[in-house]
Amino acid sequence: MNIQPGELLKSIDSPNDLKKLSRTQLHQVCDELRQYIIDVVSVYGGHFAASLGVVELTVALHYVYNTPYDQLVWDVGHQAYGHKILTGRRDNFITNRKYKGLSGFPKRSESEYDTFGVGHSSTSISAALGMSIAAKYKGENRKSVAIIGDGSMTAGMAFEAMNHAGVADSDLLIILNDNCMSIDPNVGALKEYLTDITTSHTYNKMRDEIWNILGKLPAGKNFSRDIASKVEAGLKGMVSKSSNLFESLKIRYFGPIDGHNITKLVDTLKDMRDIPGPKLLHVITVKGKGYALAEQDQTKWHAPGLFDKVTGKIYKKHYDTPQPPKYQDVFGHTIIELAEKNKTIMGVTPAMPSGSSLKFMMEKMPDRAFDVGICEQHAATLSAGLATQGMRVYCNIYSSFMQRAYDQVVHDIAIQKLPVVLCLDRAGLVGEDGPTHHGCYDIPYFRCIPNMIISAPMNEQELRNLMYTAQLPSTQMPFVIRYPRGEGVMPNWKTPFEELEIGKGRKLKDGKDLAILSIGHPGNFVQAAIRQLRTEGIDPAHYDMRFVKPIDEALLHEVFKNYSKIITVEDGAITGGFGSAVLEFMAEHQYQATVVRLGIPDRLVEHGTLKELHKECGYDADGIASTARNLLSEKVAIQFA
Amino acid sequence: MNIQPGELLKSIDSPNDLKKLSRTQLHQVCDELRQYIIDVVSVYGGHFAASLGVVELTVALHYVYNTPYDQLVWDVGHQAYGHKILTGRRDNFITNRKYKGLSGFPKRSESEYDTFGVGHSSTSISAALGMSIAAKYKGENRKSVAIIGDGSMTAGMAFEAMNHAGVADSDLLIILNDNCMSIDPNVGALKEYLTDITTSHTYNKMRDEIWNILGKLPAGKNFSRDIASKVEAGLKGMVSKSSNLFESLKIRYFGPIDGHNITKLVDTLKDMRDIPGPKLLHVITVKGKGYALAEQDQTKWHAPGLFDKVTGKIYKKHYDTPQPPKYQDVFGHTIIELAEKNKTIMGVTPAMPSGSSLKFMMEKMPDRAFDVGICEQHAATLSAGLATQGMRVYCNIYSSFMQRAYDQVVHDIAIQKLPVVLCLDRAGLVGEDGPTHHGCYDIPYFRCIPNMIISAPMNEQELRNLMYTAQLPSTQMPFVIRYPRGEGVMPNWKTPFEELEIGKGRKLKDGKDLAILSIGHPGNFVQAAIRQLRTEGIDPAHYDMRFVKPIDEALLHEVFKNYSKIITVEDGAITGGFGSAVLEFMAEHQYQATVVRLGIPDRLVEHGTLKELHKECGYDADGIASTARNLLSEKVAIQFA
Repeated sequence: MNIQPGELLKSIDSPNDLKKLSRTQLHQVCDELRQYIIDVVSVYGGHFAASLGVVELTVALHYVYNTPYDQLVWDVGHQAYGHKILTGRRDNFITNRKYKGLSGFPKRSESEYDTFGVGHSSTSISAALGMSIAAKYKGENRKSVAIIGDGSMTAGMAFEAMNHAGVADSDLLIILNDNCMSIDPNVGALKEYLTDITTSHTYNKMRDEIWNILGKLPAGKNFSRDIASKVEAGLKGMVSKSSNLFESLKIRYFGPIDGHNITKLVDTLKDMRDIPGPKLLHVITVKGKGYALAEQDQTKWHAPGLFDKVTGKIYKKHYDTPQPPKYQDVFGHTIIELAEKNKTIMGVTPAMPSGSSLKFMMEKMPDRAFDVGICEQHAATLSAGLATQGMRVYCNIYSSFMQRAYDQVVHDIAIQKLPVVLCLDRAGLVGEDGPTHHGCYDIPYFRCIPNMIISAPMNEQELRNLMYTAQLPSTQMPFVIRYPRGEGVMPNWKTPFEELEIGKGRKLKDGKDLAILSIGHPGNFVQAAIRQLRTEGIDPAHYDMRFVKPIDEALLHEVFKNYSKIITVEDGAITGGFGSAVLEFMAEHQYQATVVRLGIPDRLVEHGTLKELHKECGYDADGIASTARNLLSEKVAIQFA
Repeated sequence: MNIQPGELLKSIDSPNDLKKLSRTQLHQVCDELRQYIIDVVSVYGGHFAASLGVVELTVALHYVYNTPYDQLVWDVGHQAYGHKILTGRRDNFITNRKYKGLSGFPKRSESEYDTFGVGHSSTSISAALGMSIAAKYKGENRKSVAIIGDGSMTAGMAFEAMNHAGVADSDLLIILNDNCMSIDPNVGALKEYLTDITTSHTYNKMRDEIWNILGKLPAGKNFSRDIASKVEAGLKGMVSKSSNLFESLKIRYFGPIDGHNITKLVDTLKDMRDIPGPKLLHVITVKGKGYALAEQDQTKWHAPGLFDKVTGKIYKKHYDTPQPPKYQDVFGHTIIELAEKNKTIMGVTPAMPSGSSLKFMMEKMPDRAFDVGICEQHAATLSAGLATQGMRVYCNIYSSFMQRAYDQVVHDIAIQKLPVVLCLDRAGLVGEDGPTHHGCYDIPYFRCIPNMIISAPMNEQELRNLMYTAQLPSTQMPFVIRYPRGEGVMPNWKTPFEELEIGKGRKLKDGKDLAILSIGHPGNFVQAAIRQLRTEGIDPAHYDMRFVKPIDEALLHEVFKNYSKIITVEDGAITGGFGSAVLEFMAEHQYQATVVRLGIPDRLVEHGTLKELHKECGYDADGIASTARNLLSEKVAIQFA
């Protein structure tokens, strides 16, 4: 489809072209930029509402600041589409999030305007402060700007960065893009505070108290009111400074200002650019601005998929037969089933109620399921604290975000052997979000920790049974259940619960010549591979190991006694992963076999569809079948990196 | 040595005994408790100044609260000696931090009064909030109290927890133990803010402004002053509430109060106990209180070692010959040598200037070396931000604390392939601090990440050469250098710099029958083992691999071609560690050999001296020699767990 940018946008190949325009033309640029984002995303997909909300801010920043000499750091990066389009990637923008195309996030290797690669939240202040300190040290007058949302501001590392920025002698500007949203609505005390100052509650409260005090004065009513008015005028400035959270941290606070008023933004940023020292500009924006449906349901329109931009109809595939559900929904519904019977069950999510589907439980059992904000560290230790009181907490964190709470899992959960259930959604490759979001490392980073049970379900039924087993009174250990993004394989997924023996795998089929050992969902790829191979007279055995740790030693003895050629398959990093656990067993028991490990190779895997990436990494059905053929013909392709 | 507690302390076997005492007797209890800590720690060692600073707070908490039904969570736990002594561990306290003795930190398995195991900072609010939410859910009236220092309050997870606590409907009490110290002096904007409110700067500033405003009023001077006084009185209360950082987060703020006034503390805590909702009591204490020298030099007396309590003389061993330096000091001096020549070098530490010895550079080059507070996440991403500007940052973080910045290393350093040098001090077992502080997991948790160079020096010279190599212009990757707590082996350590080829190990000696492959400092244990073995006619080869990643494949080919019996030795978790990297190589190249991996087994290793723990884990010289003998006699002891 041929999507044309508007007249002005067409002329902007870099921010230099933008700077040539008059201020009055900026309104049109904003309109055209917004329209172009709508046109492209509706047809090619991607994140949507966040970029619409910062159209004016994006234009104003590139208009005022001398980018790329001055450095903009976009937090998370969902909102950086406008930035990409204005910085030389307009025509290429239709490849956004496509295999070999533009990244959905700012990325240093993609453009000199992308000063820092992002994807996870709350890194921008630290990064921009580093740039700012370096500029000062090198005697350069370049400016650094972190643009961070109110959701990202809840994460601890943003606070850590401000604690440093407040006393570092640097010219950092933090732009707080306050739209009251993460992917879901933002939560927590900070969010309430920001609403307070936006609506001047604090100031109003102080003013009322001043009136109360002065009402008690002996002077005549009118005279007293006169004084009160003057005091009030003085207070207004004082309160906005001294009562401010950011000013407490020695960061000068400006705002709040309307983030959709391009003229005001340009004026304000021009002023800000020359103010020395650390400072924060509080900008109020509307996520989804300019697309009415998105403004009304911001979570739905965070990344809606393809849609008809005129009617707002979101395209969904229609099937004549029941389809398998997403793993996340199996989690979301199953935890409620379990919690209805087991009153000790609670659910915790750090800002992913929709993404994890914990929202179902939050709606149904609001005293037992919590969104704690983008606070993975707190989520893990809160779960540990709850566990000390006998609660059985399902803490649901995406695999790549669990990296944020690694120490808390080691220190607060594993060392104390607390039976917290860690549900790792989006474990394995995640597709279009790319390397920042792939959940590659959880098997190696958890496998080395004592006291951990690490499991992965091959399908919906297995997920349900693992969730069921994790909450049984006999299970008194940290229990990891990792499962991938997307759909499982069972349309009729609501199977009765069955206890699984911890550390026990299962033999799915006997075979000849070689054995394939899989963990988790890729077991389905193995089954497809075996169907291919059997047509060629090759008949491998297949074991679904279910548990990475404790690994099923009895089953491994069976495997190594019967097969000298073995393939391991996992949706995770090969280095130190499930396959390595098999190698460790082999070495410890002095078996000798040819073992080929399939999984995510030891290099960055970029973005693309899951299908493309599984193929690239060689553990889709074709890759597994091909490895099996080579292994049998002694042409071992050890690594697909 | 027979150390006797005072008369009252002798009678306190649990907080119930404390509660029987009159308020006036509490002064004596505090004196005796303080004296007992001085008596025991001076003779048996341990952390010192922190516990002295909270003697009155500890007594008051156990006097007022119904422990263990009410739950106290001590942050970090350095300060919990008084708590241990009052809760049934008085006489056993002399075993503190000794092998098989009491833990230096609160520990759930040790006492029901230890509600949450600690060691790392800033976990207490999350944990106590979890307890508090569970109590509410279960309809129990138990109270939860987190006692957290101003240093710990700088870590992001404390902020994350407050962001949740402020809106969670729970009765949590946070006690901010403000002594302006971490181990080193606390730094950052929060610290300045706390000083501000303690000294009423904010209030004073507002008062002055009120006077200014009223000075401009038309009324007569005296009358105006009268009004101003009344306004001032009203303001005082308002300001302390509305201008408060914690009140911004919807946590009621009380204080500051004198943390050494036991009567005031008891009164205040009695009031606090019945106030519903989240609240914070700001308590001012002096670290080292009651021991003059400790009050004067709080860093030195954080954990001084053994000392003469009367003279304050700290005992140090004296040697007639030069001794090897601590690895941390080799780092601390070497970075200055390198930075004098390479102007792009900077140093970053999260609150460990003394422990890392970065303090030398901070004194000498204050614009190039920073303490950023207990903020590992920020430290890592700040380093990444600096690296984007061409700075070569040595970010020094203890191995177990690096767990706090795992995501930042993956997301901001490794994915972007930024040449940050991560110096992991205290890698491997750390001794008396025990399982929370052992640096067991860094090899597995880093080895799975692409783009990482992971190295470990066998001695001082190697550390210097790795540090030198890491900053060469040709080195353009994240570069991990892990080294242990304590001393190296080279009294004359200041050797000339030499570039090391990345990914190349070295053969230290040829041998017969078996090869021992070591990484890092345990190479010295291997040498000692070989000296033993040679007297018995056993002559192993020894390879110091230097790099875990990239691993020296040429050297490994040599090893596997020449030896069928191999021992790997590392000061880190066996599961997924260096030995597993060797197994992965063996499998990928289809070598067959018997490989025994020595290192930290897959269970928690408790506290003790390094010597005791290395022996327990079987990778001291004796353990290595014994493994070699067994291997040669085919009695393979695979695991020492």
